[in-house]
Amino acid sequence: MRMRLIVAYDGRPFAGWQSQPGGNTVQDLLEAAAGRILKSGGPVAVTGSGRTDAGVHAVGQVAHFDLPDTCRMDAAAWVRALNVHLPPAIRITAAEPAASGFHARFDAEGKTYRYRIWCGPVLPPLEAGLAWHVPQAMNPALLAEACRRCEGMHNFRAFAANRGDGKDDTRDTVRTIWSLTPEQDGHLLTLTFHGSGFLYKMVRLLTAAIVRTARGQESPEWIPMLLSAAKEKCPHAAPPDGLYLVSVDYPVSSSE
Amino acid sequence: MRMRLIVAYDGRPFAGWQSQPGGNTVQDLLEAAAGRILKSGGPVAVTGSGRTDAGVHAVGQVAHFDLPDTCRMDAAAWVRALNVHLPPAIRITAAEPAASGFHARFDAEGKTYRYRIWCGPVLPPLEAGLAWHVPQAMNPALLAEACRRCEGMHNFRAFAANRGDGKDDTRDTVRTIWSLTPEQDGHLLTLTFHGSGFLYKMVRLLTAAIVRTARGQESPEWIPMLLSAAKEKCPHAAPPDGLYLVSVDYPVSSSE
Repeated sequence: MRMRLIVAYDGRPFAGWQSQPGGNTVQDLLEAAAGRILKSGGPVAVTGSGRTDAGVHAVGQVAHFDLPDTCRMDAAAWVRALNVHLPPAIRITAAEPAASGFHARFDAEGKTYRYRIWCGPVLPPLEAGLAWHVPQAMNPALLAEACRRCEGMHNFRAFAANRGDGKDDTRDTVRTIWSLTPEQDGHLLTLTFHGSGFLYKMVRLLTAAIVRTARGQESPEWIPMLLSAAKEKCPHAAPPDGLYLVSVDYPVSSSE
Repeated sequence: MRMRLIVAYDGRPFAGWQSQPGGNTVQDLLEAAAGRILKSGGPVAVTGSGRTDAGVHAVGQVAHFDLPDTCRMDAAAWVRALNVHLPPAIRITAAEPAASGFHARFDAEGKTYRYRIWCGPVLPPLEAGLAWHVPQAMNPALLAEACRRCEGMHNFRAFAANRGDGKDDTRDTVRTIWSLTPEQDGHLLTLTFHGSGFLYKMVRLLTAAIVRTARGQESPEWIPMLLSAAKEKCPHAAPPDGLYLVSVDYPVSSSE
């Protein structure tokens, strides 16, 4: 049976989602926890909707793994058991049986990311590592305009970083951002990205470009220029601190 | 000149407010930072409104320290300079010149504490160390009643812990809680205490008693009984995780 998990994590203590030789990634810890519960003598493969970098947080990362037919634990018991075996900085918030062909990565139809920016003069202690501190003044009209110019279907090649593993696909960098919404609540500015998919570091590169435009460091035409440029790259990326994977969209039929 | 500071901190990495031989307290770090800025060759004494325990947080701790007459740095420069010399988990959010006789501890006329309780089944990763996880059901009417019974002037002797340093004053344990307000926002329950002063561990002992009453583990008469008892003590304390020193009240005349 295939189980679908919703995973929340504080990205600060971990080396990102993706399993790596040094361990200490969310995937490594989750695979080890599942292995201990199933007494499999080793980790059990867990597949996520996509990787998140070191320091990036998740509210609703989605993952799946397979249970042997002999396993009689229901979804609620899996939530409890995994949380017992995981550090408090990683929590399973929900589990449910998935359709047998469900795949957390290949079936994803869209994703929502949130980027949090603290605009006050002093970053509060409880925001350290959880928001990007930008104390300089931003122009709300330029901010709204910059967000709007990112929406729609574009070739986001200028907003994709090389993964450094030789695997980045430079052929298909067209994505659609269905909405990019800025919201100001006191000193906290939140950018919410909802789109068909996001290239490596795309949210952080776009966020840096939007902030530079809103601060008047770049002209409002800079982002549209990068979106139509054949070779230029956005040279700035916002830090991982403020980035949250909020949710992943799947077809309704993917639940069991 | 005497300077008054508003200090915010994440209590998790520190051994509380109060200076101690092992260091790693908020006061030690603040005194060292002031000493470095003043090039005094050692720490400069900084006096807080009162101590907070290891793991307890502050939004608005108040402290004062004295500057030599030769110092020409204004309050805004002190905010910036101290923050440069402090870890991100401690932030000076404001500074202002105080009346020369101002004393952060002796002049305090009241304090506000907040206690955060997470009532959902799973504690979110970003709440770890920042809230007390109480997933068991509470009765809202019993909760409101328990809070109301703590309000007013009482001898809170049953809700005072021994500091363990032989210094606790057992003679004067009368305090007034002007208001104790519960607020539920989704899974988050916040208790806000505003009172004339609080004994050692008083907020954590009262919070545990209120939660036990709201869960039906104790009768609604238990708190009033403890408030009038001559010898009994509340045997339960809520963990430091959920406790925040929000603000300290002073006479209006204490600013310069």
